[in-house]
Amino acid sequence: MTHDLKFSYAQLSTTLANYLAPYFDKHKAQQLAAIFTEAEFDGITTHGLKRFPRFIEEIEKNMVNTQNQPSIEFQSAGWMLINGKQGPGPLSAAFATEQAVTLAESSGIALVGLKNTNHWLRPGHYAKTAAQQGCAFISWTNTLANLKAHGSEAGSAASLGNNPLVIALPASPDPIILDTALSQFSYGKIQHYMENNEPLPVPGGYDKEGDLSTDAESIFNNLSASAIGWWKGSGLSIMLDLLAAMLSGGQSVNEISKNPGEQNVSQVFIAIKLEKLWGDAYHDRLAELQSQMRASGLHWPGQSLARNRKHHDENGISVAASTWQAVLNAVHDTGTPA
Amino acid sequence: MTHDLKFSYAQLSTTLANYLAPYFDKHKAQQLAAIFTEAEFDGITTHGLKRFPRFIEEIEKNMVNTQNQPSIEFQSAGWMLINGKQGPGPLSAAFATEQAVTLAESSGIALVGLKNTNHWLRPGHYAKTAAQQGCAFISWTNTLANLKAHGSEAGSAASLGNNPLVIALPASPDPIILDTALSQFSYGKIQHYMENNEPLPVPGGYDKEGDLSTDAESIFNNLSASAIGWWKGSGLSIMLDLLAAMLSGGQSVNEISKNPGEQNVSQVFIAIKLEKLWGDAYHDRLAELQSQMRASGLHWPGQSLARNRKHHDENGISVAASTWQAVLNAVHDTGTPA
Repeated sequence: MTHDLKFSYAQLSTTLANYLAPYFDKHKAQQLAAIFTEAEFDGITTHGLKRFPRFIEEIEKNMVNTQNQPSIEFQSAGWMLINGKQGPGPLSAAFATEQAVTLAESSGIALVGLKNTNHWLRPGHYAKTAAQQGCAFISWTNTLANLKAHGSEAGSAASLGNNPLVIALPASPDPIILDTALSQFSYGKIQHYMENNEPLPVPGGYDKEGDLSTDAESIFNNLSASAIGWWKGSGLSIMLDLLAAMLSGGQSVNEISKNPGEQNVSQVFIAIKLEKLWGDAYHDRLAELQSQMRASGLHWPGQSLARNRKHHDENGISVAASTWQAVLNAVHDTGTPA
Repeated sequence: MTHDLKFSYAQLSTTLANYLAPYFDKHKAQQLAAIFTEAEFDGITTHGLKRFPRFIEEIEKNMVNTQNQPSIEFQSAGWMLINGKQGPGPLSAAFATEQAVTLAESSGIALVGLKNTNHWLRPGHYAKTAAQQGCAFISWTNTLANLKAHGSEAGSAASLGNNPLVIALPASPDPIILDTALSQFSYGKIQHYMENNEPLPVPGGYDKEGDLSTDAESIFNNLSASAIGWWKGSGLSIMLDLLAAMLSGGQSVNEISKNPGEQNVSQVFIAIKLEKLWGDAYHDRLAELQSQMRASGLHWPGQSLARNRKHHDENGISVAASTWQAVLNAVHDTGTPA
């Protein structure tokens, strides 16, 4: 198979749900398939099919326990603690988001901490879900240590997480969504420049001497990507990690990095029900703020998602033959009917 | 007067309280004097005496209304809205912090939005207050437009706020505090490089062609400072502004920039009472996380504050003759007894 493939949303999500069927009950397989498919249709290909083989691999290695359900361990008026019990990260994150949105209905603002969970795939998915229910939403996860702290010794190991952060507001018709890691570039992006023998457009890591560098290969090989804003992003990364550990009761970047692979990460989900303050008027106010941004020539985060989605809904999406082959290999290797 | 001056905490705070006495009742004057003095003693000189003349000037221009009290306009279980009524920003921010901490006692997490307020001086002050009462704390403010959006047209005006953000955790004996604006460098810092005829150590803004630049003079003169992480910090700045406006019901960066000077900013204060989840055990857990960071060679944000404070408490602080002269000019100009 050397040609790119084309899928409609229904085709891709049904196919992926079938591939996941040996591991999950029907509803969960469909929910997971939808999260992978939505990433592709929203144009976030880094967190769609490219991560599918790794997800299957983590199941096969028992890093992701397919049968475990998240359980609620603590609840106060506005704060809930959920134990993900090493279950599938996207399902636990979706459950945590649902709980945060529901809690916010009564308390205005709600915080859900999720501990012992796995990679949640695309953070923007949960932000979109919460925003579609009228919530402002702030959420983040910690990760394996994969960022070099600014000012750390030359040649020392990565000690910070890129700790992806997502912030959303329920604008109409499409939510405003910032979905970003704290690394200036993802390793996927750095690898892309490396393979094209191109330097990064701005410094994105440190060389062996500890100086800021645009050398993609050196940064990739030395796991020495830098945080946004150097010392500033390093500090922000530390704070999001400490907050994630303290607000979920879970593991810190340092502790996660001692696990085999990236397991038992800690996540935070904060939902704020705008109706509590604004009634229905929040729609108009958000539209007014968007109109101001338009007048200033500003683009707001996530503005391209709706455009991508519309295009893909109308035309289907193209999947590179190599990407699809990797999906097939993952499910073939494991005896999944394909 | 050409020599630097030396003050103890009591000397400086008493002197400043006297200078503020014509404008405020005794308690308020002391509270404000303490916020200025603490910034100096913690070593944050950018937000101490150097801002005192501007504070007096804003009072004289009626941008800061010395008599107005903040009032609570809305309250749900975990969300309170306060109208600052153009009163003195630091007093309103201190009141909002106090309300957030108190609300968090019952609901676990509390959000206070503060609208129509003025510059709060040093964000870390409120973070320290909340952390000393056992709260994790996340707070930010929007500002005048003073940052160039990444990707905006060459030569176009600044359209984003540097929207300072503060995050704190109640570690012992000293809280962990990140206190940072989203600009890579403050204009004060850029001016410092400019006056020394030095380039910035890393790009900190855009030149006339719209390219990233280390030219301090050009960035300063064109009000073209950049956000941390270029496109990433631009997005983060927009989101913090939108959240500040929506969570406080107040003005956005765009709207603030139409005021004469920087008035009617919007602020958010989120306090989370760690005891709700952890009981007393949060002390031990935070100490454990700090010990991990120490072992990784990491410094956490705000680690220098306690060192600075100890040194200044023991030795007093030195104030440059020119800085003190500016304070005296401000109060002399306005007929304040000095």
